[in-house]
Amino acid sequence: MRIGWIGTGVMGAPMAGHLLAAGHDVRVHTRTRARAEEVLEQGAVWADAPAEVADGADAVVTMLGYPHDVRDTVLGDGGLLAALEPGAVLVDHTTSEPSLAQEIAAAAAERDVHALDAPVSGGDVGARNGKLVIMIGGEQEPFERVRPLLEAYGGNVALMGGPGAGQHTKMVNQIAISSGMVALCEALLYAHRSGLDVQAVLELIGGGAAGSFSLSNYGPRLLRGDLEPGFKIDHFIKDLGIALAEARRMNLFLPGLALAEQLYVSARAQDLGQKGTQALLVALASMSGVKLPDASG
Amino acid sequence: MRIGWIGTGVMGAPMAGHLLAAGHDVRVHTRTRARAEEVLEQGAVWADAPAEVADGADAVVTMLGYPHDVRDTVLGDGGLLAALEPGAVLVDHTTSEPSLAQEIAAAAAERDVHALDAPVSGGDVGARNGKLVIMIGGEQEPFERVRPLLEAYGGNVALMGGPGAGQHTKMVNQIAISSGMVALCEALLYAHRSGLDVQAVLELIGGGAAGSFSLSNYGPRLLRGDLEPGFKIDHFIKDLGIALAEARRMNLFLPGLALAEQLYVSARAQDLGQKGTQALLVALASMSGVKLPDASG
Repeated sequence: MRIGWIGTGVMGAPMAGHLLAAGHDVRVHTRTRARAEEVLEQGAVWADAPAEVADGADAVVTMLGYPHDVRDTVLGDGGLLAALEPGAVLVDHTTSEPSLAQEIAAAAAERDVHALDAPVSGGDVGARNGKLVIMIGGEQEPFERVRPLLEAYGGNVALMGGPGAGQHTKMVNQIAISSGMVALCEALLYAHRSGLDVQAVLELIGGGAAGSFSLSNYGPRLLRGDLEPGFKIDHFIKDLGIALAEARRMNLFLPGLALAEQLYVSARAQDLGQKGTQALLVALASMSGVKLPDASG
Repeated sequence: MRIGWIGTGVMGAPMAGHLLAAGHDVRVHTRTRARAEEVLEQGAVWADAPAEVADGADAVVTMLGYPHDVRDTVLGDGGLLAALEPGAVLVDHTTSEPSLAQEIAAAAAERDVHALDAPVSGGDVGARNGKLVIMIGGEQEPFERVRPLLEAYGGNVALMGGPGAGQHTKMVNQIAISSGMVALCEALLYAHRSGLDVQAVLELIGGGAAGSFSLSNYGPRLLRGDLEPGFKIDHFIKDLGIALAEARRMNLFLPGLALAEQLYVSARAQDLGQKGTQALLVALASMSGVKLPDASG
């Protein structure tokens, strides 16, 4: 297939790489050309603008930063939608607003283009291993058409409902992770301050009712002071902001989410925005005057 | 060994049953004799008072409700401590205050008796299957002496430090569970309100970074409206109250724990105290005016 690709950051580059490895014809654009070098070396062709990526493509895939990037790239002047041919499929992997996904799907339908919102989880490791979870909102027919593409880097690719359902599913995921990380960090702080052997405690309780992916994966990293991102706090704050706005719109009272978002804002205020989400521990510790012996800020 | 046992509720009865099955000599007392019938039928001998249970015992085990029950039974007039013989070991499985565990250990040492705080996790299912996690605070020597007893119903029996360390470890466990349940319930509410297929969402995200014991075990129960206790909200509120008091004493800022405790108080105020901890969902849903189709209140 002829594929256009926009966005070659830490996630987008290895994802596009899987498509090239599978033999697809990929034209690529990204804001900073130097970040596209890796995929250009793998055989992608450079395009100077989004509209040029769209020209003649069967599908265009975007993996951007913020909702306003998606809006500009898809709906803006010289954007993708005006340049896509009828029947083409637009796939947005950016974690973005469900309402924007619905707006794009409606605008696309008017031009006989199909839009799928398709945020992912699994981080850079999942992107490299081709094991991402991909949560899709949109129509069945275009989904089936691009499914083989998505399975080049997706371990679990699921259509969750109509336009916006992919973004809503991602919000559910982020809501669960946010309070789950609060749970882990507070448990670690209590264990540390009460003088316990924190590693022994994690090993004992991790196999029982307190067990979680966060505890098993971020607990050991935190114990060795590893704050490097899997997923950056700056990006998580964007996601939690979207979730809070959607919850407010739906009249949903989610106090755990609201608290987690505020704690992450405090972490960012403490210069941890470029660290991984597990660095919440450092911010919470500072609020109790706890010095973490191993944490390399 | 000659063992005294006090407390034959939903946890204590099957635990004492494992000791009887292993051939130990068990004398039993509990506040309401009818609740001891099961273990009496299995061969335990009734005792009319705590002091009578202690008389001649190598070890006395308690599994009670609240810290004040532990204080009365161990330190009170006609309590265990005054009746225990030198060298005997006192094991308290009640989830109780770390400071009370330390007070009891000190009082016991003065009489040449050994006290271990030994709260458990794993619920009634773990008690029946003999697979409880037992978190112990106290000295090594008496721990080694009673370890074979504890292994009659414990799948993972660990000495975590000196007096109080078992209770502190249990608090870490409950802190992690409390915000973890908030995470699950808020994720479910968002999924429901945004019109997603909640079961499909749980299956998709449960295998990734949002995964947890709570999601895997309580998610499906909540989807079929099962609010029956594994562990009752009334008891969880007791545990969270102890954790908050200890955190305050240690100058620890744990806002997720504080929020979870308040939400559980609201659940109790909505007549859910005798339901399982997963019934937090019902209380949270009511705060957003969400009617849960499957939940049997």
